[in-house]
Amino acid sequence: MDLHHVGIATDDLEGMVAQYETVLEVEPVHRERLDGLEVAFLETGSCLLELLEPHQSGTVARFLERRGPGLHHLAFETDDITAALGQAATAGVELVDESPRSGAWGHEVAFVHPAGMGGVLVEFVQHPH
Amino acid sequence: MDLHHVGIATDDLEGMVAQYETVLEVEPVHRERLDGLEVAFLETGSCLLELLEPHQSGTVARFLERRGPGLHHLAFETDDITAALGQAATAGVELVDESPRSGAWGHEVAFVHPAGMGGVLVEFVQHPH
Repeated sequence: MDLHHVGIATDDLEGMVAQYETVLEVEPVHRERLDGLEVAFLETGSCLLELLEPHQSGTVARFLERRGPGLHHLAFETDDITAALGQAATAGVELVDESPRSGAWGHEVAFVHPAGMGGVLVEFVQHPH
Repeated sequence: MDLHHVGIATDDLEGMVAQYETVLEVEPVHRERLDGLEVAFLETGSCLLELLEPHQSGTVARFLERRGPGLHHLAFETDDITAALGQAATAGVELVDESPRSGAWGHEVAFVHPAGMGGVLVEFVQHPH
């Protein structure tokens, strides 16, 4: 599977977009509000950075309280998200989402638990058909 | 700049390579020992995952003690690592490495401090000429 994006939790989305544009020469390509989050995608080669700033309580807000801003998750692209979840479950990985749900940018997404992935929160992403 | 790799700290490199091959269908493409670390690169589209297992004390060992296994850093590819460091310093980012040094796979590398990058440890990578 290809790496689709790297999710980064922040409490200062605007400042971080500006800093990443300057230091890393990455371009903002998409913005939206979703599930209590302000989300900005930045393009870096064929991958994306997904900056996430919570504006209400939820998993990203709890992550910020517990660990502070920083790297949050990795998202991998698949043509068959249901098969990807089945493969993860068979390998003993606990599923956060038993079935796909609507994510940012119109994608179908599903998360699996970091415990089975070496401490990395992993998301599967499927483009809409 | 393009994302070159995502660094992940682990205390079980062999188990993690096997799990990532199975669940994420990513291929191991390179292995080496460097600076007290066992390093494995896995290919995921045009990016790489760099799994890092320390076998002696150092920054990755301290990271594991403090935060446990998981996402460690992002590496961005540049044609001019000295210019990239200068640009970061101008933007107020503290440099971990004032000048490039030899990294994995024959690359020139330099790190900048997470404090100026939204809590993300950032590495610049330049291919050898």
